[in-house]
Amino acid sequence: MSVLDNLKYAETGLIPAIIQDAGSGEVLMFAFTNAEALRRSLLTGRMHFYSRSRKKLWMKGEESGHFQDVVEIRVDCDEDAVLVRVKQSGGACHTGFRSCFFRKLEPLDADNGRLVENGHRVFDPDSVYKKK
Amino acid sequence: MSVLDNLKYAETGLIPAIIQDAGSGEVLMFAFTNAEALRRSLLTGRMHFYSRSRKKLWMKGEESGHFQDVVEIRVDCDEDAVLVRVKQSGGACHTGFRSCFFRKLEPLDADNGRLVENGHRVFDPDSVYKKK
Repeated sequence: MSVLDNLKYAETGLIPAIIQDAGSGEVLMFAFTNAEALRRSLLTGRMHFYSRSRKKLWMKGEESGHFQDVVEIRVDCDEDAVLVRVKQSGGACHTGFRSCFFRKLEPLDADNGRLVENGHRVFDPDSVYKKK
Repeated sequence: MSVLDNLKYAETGLIPAIIQDAGSGEVLMFAFTNAEALRRSLLTGRMHFYSRSRKKLWMKGEESGHFQDVVEIRVDCDEDAVLVRVKQSGGACHTGFRSCFFRKLEPLDADNGRLVENGHRVFDPDSVYKKK
Protein backbone atom coordinates (compact mmCIF):
# COMPACT_ATOMS: atom_id res chain seq x y z
CA MET A 1 0.00 0.00 0.00
CA SER A 2 1.36 3.37 -0.91
CA VAL A 3 0.38 6.75 0.51
CA LEU A 4 -1.70 7.31 -2.61
CA ASP A 5 -3.90 4.31 -1.81
CA ASN A 6 -4.72 5.72 1.60
CA LEU A 7 -6.02 9.10 0.45
CA LYS A 8 -9.74 9.64 0.92
CA TYR A 9 -11.18 9.38 -2.55
CA ALA A 10 -14.84 10.19 -3.16
CA GLU A 11 -17.22 7.33 -3.98
CA THR A 12 -16.47 8.06 -7.62
CA GLY A 13 -12.79 7.34 -6.93
CA LEU A 14 -11.92 10.98 -7.57
CA ILE A 15 -10.01 13.47 -5.48
CA PRO A 16 -9.79 17.25 -6.08
CA ALA A 17 -6.41 18.51 -7.28
CA ILE A 18 -5.27 22.12 -7.05
CA ILE A 19 -2.40 22.89 -9.41
CA GLN A 20 -0.05 25.67 -8.35
CA ASP A 21 3.00 27.12 -10.09
CA ALA A 22 5.90 26.10 -7.85
CA GLY A 23 7.83 29.22 -8.74
CA SER A 24 5.35 32.08 -8.64
CA GLY A 25 2.70 30.53 -6.38
CA GLU A 26 0.01 31.31 -8.95
CA VAL A 27 -2.93 28.87 -8.83
CA LEU A 28 -3.07 27.53 -12.37
CA MET A 29 -6.03 25.18 -12.50
CA PHE A 30 -8.38 22.89 -10.63
CA ALA A 31 -9.36 19.40 -11.77
CA PHE A 32 -10.12 15.95 -10.48
CA THR A 33 -7.62 13.16 -10.41
CA ASN A 34 -7.65 9.61 -9.04
CA ALA A 35 -5.25 7.04 -7.61
CA GLU A 36 -4.15 5.68 -10.96
CA ALA A 37 -3.64 9.14 -12.46
CA LEU A 38 -1.61 10.16 -9.42
CA ARG A 39 0.48 7.01 -9.74
CA ARG A 40 1.20 7.77 -13.39
CA SER A 41 2.03 11.35 -12.44
CA LEU A 42 4.69 10.09 -10.07
CA LEU A 43 6.02 7.47 -12.49
CA THR A 44 6.32 9.92 -15.39
CA GLY A 45 6.90 13.13 -13.45
CA ARG A 46 4.07 14.76 -15.38
CA MET A 47 0.65 15.51 -13.97
CA HIS A 48 -2.26 13.27 -14.95
CA PHE A 49 -5.97 13.74 -14.30
CA TYR A 50 -9.22 11.86 -14.76
CA SER A 51 -11.82 13.33 -17.08
CA ARG A 52 -15.37 12.72 -15.92
CA SER A 53 -16.85 13.68 -19.29
CA ARG A 54 -14.49 11.53 -21.35
CA LYS A 55 -14.25 8.82 -18.67
CA LYS A 56 -10.52 8.41 -19.11
CA LEU A 57 -7.16 9.36 -17.69
CA TRP A 58 -5.38 12.19 -19.42
CA MET A 59 -1.99 13.78 -19.13
CA LYS A 60 -1.89 17.56 -19.04
CA GLY A 61 -0.07 18.60 -22.20
CA GLU A 62 -0.80 15.42 -24.19
CA GLU A 63 -2.43 17.54 -26.89
CA SER A 64 -0.96 21.00 -26.27
CA GLY A 65 2.57 20.06 -25.26
CA HIS A 66 2.06 22.25 -22.19
CA PHE A 67 3.13 19.72 -19.59
CA GLN A 68 3.08 20.10 -15.82
CA ASP A 69 6.28 18.73 -14.30
CA VAL A 70 5.47 17.65 -10.76
CA VAL A 71 7.67 19.37 -8.17
CA GLU A 72 5.77 18.51 -5.01
CA ILE A 73 2.54 16.85 -3.90
CA ARG A 74 0.95 18.10 -0.71
CA VAL A 75 -2.05 16.54 1.05
CA ASP A 76 -4.57 18.35 3.20
CA CYS A 77 -5.52 17.60 6.81
CA ASP A 78 -8.49 15.42 5.85
CA GLU A 79 -6.51 13.68 3.11
CA ASP A 80 -9.33 14.35 0.66
CA ALA A 81 -7.63 16.98 -1.53
CA VAL A 82 -4.16 17.36 -3.02
CA LEU A 83 -2.10 20.42 -3.86
CA VAL A 84 0.32 19.73 -6.68
CA ARG A 85 3.09 22.24 -7.18
CA VAL A 86 4.36 22.11 -10.75
CA LYS A 87 6.64 23.63 -13.31
CA GLN A 88 4.21 24.62 -16.07
CA SER A 89 5.33 24.88 -19.66
CA GLY A 90 3.30 27.24 -21.86
CA GLY A 91 -0.07 27.89 -20.26
CA ALA A 92 -2.32 25.77 -18.08
CA CYS A 93 -5.59 26.97 -19.58
CA HIS A 94 -7.01 25.71 -22.88
CA THR A 95 -8.09 29.29 -23.65
CA GLY A 96 -4.47 30.42 -23.91
CA PHE A 97 -4.13 32.01 -20.50
CA ARG A 98 -1.39 31.02 -18.10
CA SER A 99 -3.98 30.25 -15.40
CA CYS A 100 -7.57 29.06 -15.73
CA PHE A 101 -8.47 31.65 -13.08
CA PHE A 102 -7.98 34.58 -15.45
CA ARG A 103 -11.17 36.41 -14.46
CA LYS A 104 -12.08 38.14 -11.25
CA LEU A 105 -15.39 39.27 -9.85
CA GLU A 106 -15.41 43.05 -9.95
CA PRO A 107 -16.47 44.97 -8.05
CA LEU A 108 -16.65 42.55 -5.14
CA ASP A 109 -20.42 42.82 -4.91
CA ALA A 110 -22.88 39.96 -5.45
CA ASP A 111 -25.58 41.95 -7.18
CA ASN A 112 -23.65 44.21 -9.46
CA GLY A 113 -20.47 42.27 -10.08
CA ARG A 114 -19.20 41.04 -13.41
CA LEU A 115 -16.27 38.88 -14.44
CA VAL A 116 -13.33 40.91 -15.69
CA GLU A 117 -10.31 39.42 -17.44
CA ASN A 118 -7.24 39.92 -15.35
CA GLY A 119 -4.34 38.25 -17.11
CA HIS A 120 -2.97 37.83 -20.59
CA ARG A 121 -2.86 35.05 -23.14
CA VAL A 122 0.48 33.29 -23.38
CA PHE A 123 -0.41 31.20 -26.45
CA ASP A 124 -2.92 31.03 -29.28
CA PRO A 125 -5.33 28.17 -28.53
CA ASP A 126 -6.34 27.79 -32.20
CA SER A 127 -2.81 26.90 -33.19
CA VAL A 128 -2.23 24.61 -30.20
CA TYR A 129 -5.45 22.60 -29.97
CA LYS A 130 -6.61 20.85 -33.15
CA LYS A 131 -10.15 20.31 -31.94
CA LYS A 132 -11.56 22.91 -29.62
CA MET B 1 -29.31 37.49 -11.80
CA SER B 2 -25.86 38.03 -10.40
CA VAL B 3 -22.60 36.52 -11.57
CA LEU B 4 -22.84 34.07 -8.68
CA ASP B 5 -26.10 32.64 -10.00
CA ASN B 6 -24.48 31.88 -13.35
CA LEU B 7 -21.60 29.79 -12.05
CA LYS B 8 -21.75 26.10 -12.89
CA TYR B 9 -22.69 24.42 -9.65
CA ALA B 10 -22.70 20.64 -9.40
CA GLU B 11 -26.05 18.84 -9.15
CA THR B 12 -25.62 19.08 -5.39
CA GLY B 13 -25.51 22.86 -5.68
CA LEU B 14 -21.88 22.90 -4.61
CA ILE B 15 -18.82 24.43 -6.23
CA PRO B 16 -15.18 23.80 -5.24
CA ALA B 17 -13.42 26.71 -3.54
CA ILE B 18 -9.65 27.07 -3.29
CA ILE B 19 -8.62 29.47 -0.55
CA GLN B 20 -5.32 31.28 -1.05
CA ASP B 21 -3.50 33.77 1.16
CA ALA B 22 -3.66 37.03 -0.81
CA GLY B 23 -0.35 38.17 0.60
CA SER B 24 1.96 35.15 0.49
CA GLY B 25 0.18 33.13 -2.22
CA GLU B 26 0.11 30.09 0.10
CA VAL B 27 -2.82 27.77 -0.61
CA LEU B 28 -4.58 27.56 2.75
CA MET B 29 -7.47 25.16 2.30
CA PHE B 30 -9.95 23.54 -0.04
CA ALA B 31 -13.66 23.21 0.64
CA PHE B 32 -17.02 23.32 -1.06
CA THR B 33 -19.23 26.34 -1.10
CA ASN B 34 -22.53 27.19 -2.80
CA ALA B 35 -24.38 30.20 -4.19
CA GLU B 36 -25.89 31.24 -0.87
CA ALA B 37 -22.59 30.87 1.01
CA LEU B 38 -20.83 32.93 -1.66
CA ARG B 39 -23.52 35.58 -1.41
CA ARG B 40 -23.07 35.76 2.36
CA SER B 41 -19.31 35.93 1.86
CA LEU B 42 -19.72 39.02 -0.29
CA LEU B 43 -22.29 40.61 2.00
CA THR B 44 -20.20 40.11 5.14
CA GLY B 45 -16.73 40.20 3.61
CA ARG B 46 -15.94 36.90 5.34
CA MET B 47 -15.72 33.56 3.61
CA HIS B 48 -18.59 31.09 4.03
CA PHE B 49 -18.80 27.45 2.99
CA TYR B 50 -21.32 24.63 2.87
CA SER B 51 -20.68 21.58 5.01
CA ARG B 52 -21.86 18.36 3.38
CA SER B 53 -21.60 16.39 6.62
CA ARG B 54 -23.46 18.94 8.75
CA LYS B 55 -25.73 20.00 5.86
CA LYS B 56 -25.45 23.67 6.68
CA LEU B 57 -23.70 26.89 5.79
CA TRP B 58 -20.79 27.87 7.97
CA MET B 59 -18.53 30.85 8.23
CA LYS B 60 -14.83 30.18 8.52
CA GLY B 61 -13.82 31.41 11.97
CA GLU B 62 -17.28 31.18 13.53
CA GLU B 63 -15.86 28.89 16.22
CA SER B 64 -12.13 29.66 16.12
CA GLY B 65 -12.23 33.38 15.43
CA HIS B 66 -9.84 32.73 12.56
CA PHE B 67 -11.78 34.56 9.87
CA GLN B 68 -11.00 34.79 6.18
CA ASP B 69 -11.50 38.33 4.91
CA VAL B 70 -12.30 38.10 1.21
CA VAL B 71 -9.89 40.12 -0.91
CA GLU B 72 -10.73 38.78 -4.35
CA ILE B 73 -12.86 36.09 -5.99
CA ARG B 74 -11.57 34.57 -9.21
CA VAL B 75 -13.49 32.16 -11.46
CA ASP B 76 -11.98 29.52 -13.71
CA CYS B 77 -12.48 29.09 -17.47
CA ASP B 78 -15.30 26.57 -17.07
CA GLU B 79 -16.93 28.60 -14.29
CA ASP B 80 -17.12 25.49 -12.13
CA ALA B 81 -14.48 26.38 -9.51
CA VAL B 82 -13.60 29.54 -7.59
CA LEU B 83 -10.31 30.81 -6.24
CA VAL B 84 -10.84 33.04 -3.22
CA ARG B 85 -7.89 35.16 -2.17
CA VAL B 86 -8.19 36.09 1.49
CA LYS B 87 -6.56 37.74 4.43
CA GLN B 88 -6.39 34.90 6.97
CA SER B 89 -6.33 35.61 10.67
CA GLY B 90 -4.72 32.92 12.85
CA GLY B 91 -4.54 29.66 10.93
CA ALA B 92 -6.80 28.13 8.33
CA CYS B 93 -6.45 24.54 9.52
CA HIS B 94 -8.36 23.12 12.49
CA THR B 95 -5.18 21.24 13.46
CA GLY B 96 -3.39 24.49 14.26
CA PHE B 97 -1.37 24.82 11.07
CA ARG B 98 -1.52 27.92 8.94
CA SER B 99 -2.47 25.82 5.89
CA CYS B 100 -4.38 22.54 5.67
CA PHE B 101 -1.73 21.38 3.19
CA PHE B 102 0.94 21.01 5.87
CA ARG B 103 2.21 17.61 4.69
CA LYS B 104 4.08 16.69 1.59
CA LEU B 105 4.68 13.35 -0.08
CA GLU B 106 8.34 12.52 0.36
CA PRO B 107 10.22 11.28 -1.47
CA LEU B 108 8.18 11.88 -4.59
CA ASP B 109 7.74 8.18 -5.23
CA ALA B 110 4.43 6.32 -5.31
CA ASP B 111 5.57 3.11 -3.71
CA ASN B 112 7.87 4.29 -0.98
CA GLY B 113 6.54 7.73 -0.17
CA ARG B 114 5.24 8.93 3.14
CA LEU B 115 3.60 12.14 4.32
CA VAL B 116 6.02 14.46 6.07
CA GLU B 117 4.96 17.53 8.01
CA ASN B 118 6.29 20.63 6.36
CA GLY B 119 5.04 23.62 8.28
CA HIS B 120 4.51 24.70 11.84
CA ARG B 121 1.54 25.17 14.11
CA VAL B 122 0.44 28.77 14.60
CA PHE B 123 -2.12 28.03 17.32
CA ASP B 124 -3.11 25.34 19.80
CA PRO B 125 -6.29 23.67 18.51
CA ASP B 126 -7.27 22.42 21.99
CA SER B 127 -7.57 25.94 23.29
CA VAL B 128 -9.33 27.27 20.19
CA TYR B 129 -11.90 24.58 19.41
CA LYS B 130 -14.17 23.47 22.25
CA LYS B 131 -15.27 20.25 20.61
CA LYS B 132 -12.73 18.56 18.40
